[in-house]
Amino acid sequence: MNPFQPFIKQADEQHLWEKTLTLNRNDFLKIGETTDTNVYYVVGGCLRIFVLDEVEEHTIRFGYQGNIIAALDSFLTGKPSDLYIQALRKTELKIISKPTFNTLVAASIENRVYWQQTLEALVVQQMERELDLLISSPIERYLRVMKRSPHLFQEVPHKYIASYLRMTPETLSRVKKS
Amino acid sequence: MNPFQPFIKQADEQHLWEKTLTLNRNDFLKIGETTDTNVYYVVGGCLRIFVLDEVEEHTIRFGYQGNIIAALDSFLTGKPSDLYIQALRKTELKIISKPTFNTLVAASIENRVYWQQTLEALVVQQMERELDLLISSPIERYLRVMKRSPHLFQEVPHKYIASYLRMTPETLSRVKKS
Repeated sequence: MNPFQPFIKQADEQHLWEKTLTLNRNDFLKIGETTDTNVYYVVGGCLRIFVLDEVEEHTIRFGYQGNIIAALDSFLTGKPSDLYIQALRKTELKIISKPTFNTLVAASIENRVYWQQTLEALVVQQMERELDLLISSPIERYLRVMKRSPHLFQEVPHKYIASYLRMTPETLSRVKKS
Repeated sequence: MNPFQPFIKQADEQHLWEKTLTLNRNDFLKIGETTDTNVYYVVGGCLRIFVLDEVEEHTIRFGYQGNIIAALDSFLTGKPSDLYIQALRKTELKIISKPTFNTLVAASIENRVYWQQTLEALVVQQMERELDLLISSPIERYLRVMKRSPHLFQEVPHKYIASYLRMTPETLSRVKKS
């Protein structure tokens, strides 16, 4: 269940999407050390969020049709963040800005409660992700993500799923067969 | 800044703490596969939260004087969670139950906004922790945590900080000297 669903529905009904944007494969929506406080709805296509360290890229999140994607840390703090967001194929997005989103959240007690529930779901998702990263067994990590996001494997090129799972593409192939 | 501060203050003023609890060194407040929806205020002492996988323990959070500590996933979902919470020395806690906490949150629009801000801070903290876990360099991981939680090194035995930083105690000693 997408925790943003009540806001997507209201943004549709009240025509709050301010812009649309089309990205080609490999285009960047955001690069490191920049601020991006928009919320994006993925009309079609597929994106990944990643971070860079001195040694390599780490894919940390995906967005595909029907998802919301955002540089969540930058959205919440209003400050620059280290996240990169890149289209993995041609991708169409609808955009709502943070001020418009905040106005929507503050529009009713009901919406404040929805936002509270959205944030609670995001905290729980982040805690699951933290456990993912700590689990030593590649098979365990694969099974947890399969259970949580079964569609992922249809939507996203496997080399990025391997990065998300902290294993090589070869290990992912082996784990899938086992 | 403790994101729970407004609620600690109000719980004090309105006498909402329902119980106190004293733990001895190494006592468990929670073990794996149990539900615990309480919120705990640390009056004194020190605790850690950890998870177990097949291979080892992973320390994921600490609480010491003036902090709130909770099995956050279990608190938010009302379901069992894999977290263990253990006292690292004699520890005194004040307890507020989830129903009482929820009543406090719902008591005013102002409190709903505080809770929204608390959850937003928790999401940002979780994202920082996710990046901590992905960074390859032990020195980088150490510096990020030192910057974020300088008091940690006074409060918590270093072998648990090493676990939190995903390095051996020997590596932590070396990194601190460098």
